[in-house]
Amino acid sequence: MKISELSRRSGVPLPTVKFYLRAGLLPPGERTGVNQAVYGDAHLRRLAAIRALREVGGLSIEQIADVVAAIDDPGLPVRDVLARSCDAMLTRPGSPPASPPAAGGEIDALMVALGWEVRPDAAARRELAETLAALRANGYPDLPAEAFIEYARLMEPLARAEIDHFLEGAATSRERAVEESVTGTVLWERVLTTLRRAAHEHFVSQAPELTRH
Amino acid sequence: MKISELSRRSGVPLPTVKFYLRAGLLPPGERTGVNQAVYGDAHLRRLAAIRALREVGGLSIEQIADVVAAIDDPGLPVRDVLARSCDAMLTRPGSPPASPPAAGGEIDALMVALGWEVRPDAAARRELAETLAALRANGYPDLPAEAFIEYARLMEPLARAEIDHFLEGAATSRERAVEESVTGTVLWERVLTTLRRAAHEHFVSQAPELTRH
Repeated sequence: MKISELSRRSGVPLPTVKFYLRAGLLPPGERTGVNQAVYGDAHLRRLAAIRALREVGGLSIEQIADVVAAIDDPGLPVRDVLARSCDAMLTRPGSPPASPPAAGGEIDALMVALGWEVRPDAAARRELAETLAALRANGYPDLPAEAFIEYARLMEPLARAEIDHFLEGAATSRERAVEESVTGTVLWERVLTTLRRAAHEHFVSQAPELTRH
Repeated sequence: MKISELSRRSGVPLPTVKFYLRAGLLPPGERTGVNQAVYGDAHLRRLAAIRALREVGGLSIEQIADVVAAIDDPGLPVRDVLARSCDAMLTRPGSPPASPPAAGGEIDALMVALGWEVRPDAAARRELAETLAALRANGYPDLPAEAFIEYARLMEPLARAEIDHFLEGAATSRERAVEESVTGTVLWERVLTTLRRAAHEHFVSQAPELTRH
């Protein structure tokens, strides 16, 4: 297909498609003339993955370029490609390069206690350590990391079922695997957290009364 | 205390304290001279609440002004004050004024099926409807709203325990109630979602191999 059809079918505006080509996020088409090239299904798949990373995952262009480089690295196992996009989703733009926070060692011990195999440099460890520090600074001064275990055990069967479902789906390409992992992670997380907040409102409404002044 | 001590003890920079006074977020101190006033514990509590709303809850100044107005309205029950700050935390800056999305009716039916008492105009309903629509547009075209029930039943006992803990704490002021509700909602949510992501990585690492190309 021509670039105009690639734009139409992917839903990505033509100037953006051209930018992705220039930036190397999208591989060049097959040249058919001096200023003409044709594009195929691989380009559609790549654009769908980029769109998921950008719109659903909230990644910056720099982060997307990093994930795309991982997709294009044939020596890198798929699970490492997925780890790279998951880490990017937890890295907030503008946050300083992480020096290991004080609570880092406690989170490492927590992962051992849980029996979870998580990379030593996974962004989730840093995020948990920062959240533990934030809780201590905001009303829970003596909170031990073990307080997270109850939440971890609640998430375990859910995460297992979600990954089983993901693996059953047998994505047809590395791009599809990234796309499904991003939308599955972010959108179902939003389902989970919003239902928690709705349930909070329900249980507050059930409480006899709040007599605070 | 003088305004300089108020700034120091609250950790809020002096120019910011002065801005909050001008903007009416912080009530005036007791005048002791032409250009002098003294401040008390109520001001410290208010600054702590504003800080939680801003730094932890991510609210804009306009949203904080709205919550503060609710705190200052003696006729408004505490649960309505909390509902206001919860809704603000789910309202992303720049998102268009919500026209009810197509999936809205399905979420209303879901709340009835769950037996949850949630205000008809709660931001959580809109957020769930938008997330359902996003899931349908991203890989789950036929997803029924009932697919959320499993996640809801998982969140129910957790949310109940969290609200019981919150009510036991018996906040000493409306400001404290807002502050605790914001940090409890946001920081424990981050614990929950990050543990889910860490568990994902664990279960992916347990899978025999991912043979996608």
